[in-house]
Amino acid sequence: MKPYFAEFLGTFWLVLGGCGSAVLAAAFPELGIGLLGVSLAFGLTVLTMAFAIGHISGCHLNPAVSIGLWLGGRFSANQLLPYIVAQVLGGITAGAVLYAIASGAPGFDVSAGFAANGYGEHSPGGYTLGAALITEIVMTMFFLIVILGATDKLAPQGFAGLPIGLALTLIHLISIPVTNTSVNPARSTGVAVFVGDWAVAQLWAFWLAPIAGAALGALAYKAIQPRMA
Amino acid sequence: MKPYFAEFLGTFWLVLGGCGSAVLAAAFPELGIGLLGVSLAFGLTVLTMAFAIGHISGCHLNPAVSIGLWLGGRFSANQLLPYIVAQVLGGITAGAVLYAIASGAPGFDVSAGFAANGYGEHSPGGYTLGAALITEIVMTMFFLIVILGATDKLAPQGFAGLPIGLALTLIHLISIPVTNTSVNPARSTGVAVFVGDWAVAQLWAFWLAPIAGAALGALAYKAIQPRMA
Amino acid sequence: MKPYFAEFLGTFWLVLGGCGSAVLAAAFPELGIGLLGVSLAFGLTVLTMAFAIGHISGCHLNPAVSIGLWLGGRFSANQLLPYIVAQVLGGITAGAVLYAIASGAPGFDVSAGFAANGYGEHSPGGYTLGAALITEIVMTMFFLIVILGATDKLAPQGFAGLPIGLALTLIHLISIPVTNTSVNPARSTGVAVFVGDWAVAQLWAFWLAPIAGAALGALAYKAIQPRMA
Amino acid sequence: MKPYFAEFLGTFWLVLGGCGSAVLAAAFPELGIGLLGVSLAFGLTVLTMAFAIGHISGCHLNPAVSIGLWLGGRFSANQLLPYIVAQVLGGITAGAVLYAIASGAPGFDVSAGFAANGYGEHSPGGYTLGAALITEIVMTMFFLIVILGATDKLAPQGFAGLPIGLALTLIHLISIPVTNTSVNPARSTGVAVFVGDWAVAQLWAFWLAPIAGAALGALAYKAIQPRMA
Repeated sequence: MKPYFAEFLGTFWLVLGGCGSAVLAAAFPELGIGLLGVSLAFGLTVLTMAFAIGHISGCHLNPAVSIGLWLGGRFSANQLLPYIVAQVLGGITAGAVLYAIASGAPGFDVSAGFAANGYGEHSPGGYTLGAALITEIVMTMFFLIVILGATDKLAPQGFAGLPIGLALTLIHLISIPVTNTSVNPARSTGVAVFVGDWAVAQLWAFWLAPIAGAALGALAYKAIQPRMA
Repeated sequence: MKPYFAEFLGTFWLVLGGCGSAVLAAAFPELGIGLLGVSLAFGLTVLTMAFAIGHISGCHLNPAVSIGLWLGGRFSANQLLPYIVAQVLGGITAGAVLYAIASGAPGFDVSAGFAANGYGEHSPGGYTLGAALITEIVMTMFFLIVILGATDKLAPQGFAGLPIGLALTLIHLISIPVTNTSVNPARSTGVAVFVGDWAVAQLWAFWLAPIAGAALGALAYKAIQPRMA
Repeated sequence: MKPYFAEFLGTFWLVLGGCGSAVLAAAFPELGIGLLGVSLAFGLTVLTMAFAIGHISGCHLNPAVSIGLWLGGRFSANQLLPYIVAQVLGGITAGAVLYAIASGAPGFDVSAGFAANGYGEHSPGGYTLGAALITEIVMTMFFLIVILGATDKLAPQGFAGLPIGLALTLIHLISIPVTNTSVNPARSTGVAVFVGDWAVAQLWAFWLAPIAGAALGALAYKAIQPRMA
Repeated sequence: MKPYFAEFLGTFWLVLGGCGSAVLAAAFPELGIGLLGVSLAFGLTVLTMAFAIGHISGCHLNPAVSIGLWLGGRFSANQLLPYIVAQVLGGITAGAVLYAIASGAPGFDVSAGFAANGYGEHSPGGYTLGAALITEIVMTMFFLIVILGATDKLAPQGFAGLPIGLALTLIHLISIPVTNTSVNPARSTGVAVFVGDWAVAQLWAFWLAPIAGAALGALAYKAIQPRMA
């Protein structure tokens, strides 16, 4: 049970930290952290947890990552379901705690977004569904290439948490305007259930595209890896 | 005495660097570093000291961290009091030096905040006491999970200063709008004594909540750690 | 073929991530990441790929780097051409994907720049050709010094991806206003072909200057290295 | 001669990168990197050079650091003078190259500051000489504590370039508003000679205070270090 509870805690931290920085601090008057701060926060949730629980659960924190690692031959199929359940529960619990904190300030309005992912009229920059799907697929694909490459036995040992966490920062620096950046169905689900309505209606895209991208990333890394891992 | 003096110096650096960046540079006209810069500064005080004095005192710099490490079985009870005294003295000395520097500029007004922590009408974003307590408890809880995990014998050796320092950056990216972010009673005390008034009156919350959160973090890590540490 | 495909993927990521952050997120209303975010994004593409594919292809992602490494005695001449071809193809493919994403938002106009490099009236800050050439030469020269030094057998092993990636961040922090920062002919070509017109007409400078700078960097490192590498 | 040329190149990079980011990019319209970007740039010059030339010259790049390392028993007195000469020449050469680049843009005016250090009416935030001296002394003192601690044989090996570079970022995050941040007489001299006038007249403070601070830092680390280094 320890790896599952570790995944629950880690995904809780990812959603509370990433979406929390977006909801609480991004647009703080005059001094707000903006999309750059939110990007850094998302990446640091993974970077910090990679060193905190990597030796316990591998620190996936993301159903697409678990699926990509399984397709890449690094994770066993029979752990897939409990990992994903723990991740989604961690994400939703974080959404609840964030809701409790955010509603402690005057003027809080969950329908303003609550960091939910969206496309079309719910994309921060008004990007179409097509652009959103390409973006989520390509971003998750390269996220998996970095994860599979940095944890390869031939890569420098011990460092993997740094490039993997910072890859998530990079992905957000590029793509928040397009979809608010998912690349992680647990993160999308964790806040969408509190926004309801359009956020839940668009949730399919943020399960489908990240998982498709993760599969492509596993394929791509298999094509370039020096030997069987 | 060496570890105690190291803790004094390290906590001095944490408060001077973190609160100093907030007081001196956050709102500098047009080019100010904002909450993102302050978040980075707090984290870098810990990251730099972790490598500078980690081998001397363990680099706690924070009574809640010392208590959490004790509860997590990593620190002996009989060193708790001198560590906490050294940390609080370091914080207050830093507050004094910062006061001396800040009062060298025209228009300095310590009652404008001096980076003190607060809730309710003294929360930067007007968050209630309840939201403030939840935030400080959860943030410190995960700070301890990162500290205990990253310094676990099973985690990559030598890296711990990076995720621990950057965890403090992340915590500030999320929670400055709520409480100005404490997670550290010595940091709160170091500036509150110069603001006086409301800052001292609200200080109890920034001792209670971080220590409670650290205890929860120690419990949580005990629940997931692979073996006795 | 694996190293060539790795270089293709890595350069794709560099151009999609670096230029993508510039096109999609730099000037996002109120919350945009600005030149600081773009600088971070460019550096993180290299940092992440260094750990992901460094053990496969050496992670050059840049014709000037490949040439500099060859002149520095670290790369064989007979791999130079296929590496450069893979890098340019990766860059152009990234330009195409970025074009597809960016055109999914209302009001996209490729002639507004699309992150192309330029001098004179196409320099972001209106810098002359002379200033642009000096800048690109000196920046690439020091990029190569960092690459050759950090991968020296006498430098700490395993870390090189961190200073090399962050060197690219630093280079962008300095020089985006001058040329939009190239130091990489594949990056320049990858977006210039979509802008056409002036961007293609000025492309010679962003092949010539980075390669000249890389040669100077290889010379400089040879002058200071403790022994033959 | 190799260590001296390495120090020349490294200090050139520190001044070109740090002051260059300030002069060229800090206040770029709407997208400028601000004091946060300049802070990051200064730190990254040291971080990148630490890995590039640390194994050649120790990567001091700063007369105050060389003196502090000598006082801390880590550097021999007979190398002090050639190191300092190389550092100052590197700084001035960087000032010249930066001048050449900056004057390639319309409206360049060196008397607007050119990133020179100052106090009183030449302090960015109007801080008094007293505040400036305290700031420079304390900042350099802790810079040396981080340098001496992170390069201690008991600290994690190979990492030192990260905390040392990021310490310089942190120092700038705190103190640019006070003095434009020196902590490095070579950096101050490198640009002051091009500004002339007040910048040269105030230069004494940016030799005196950093050297005094470095001496205090060496003393402080001697007081806490576990054994003779």
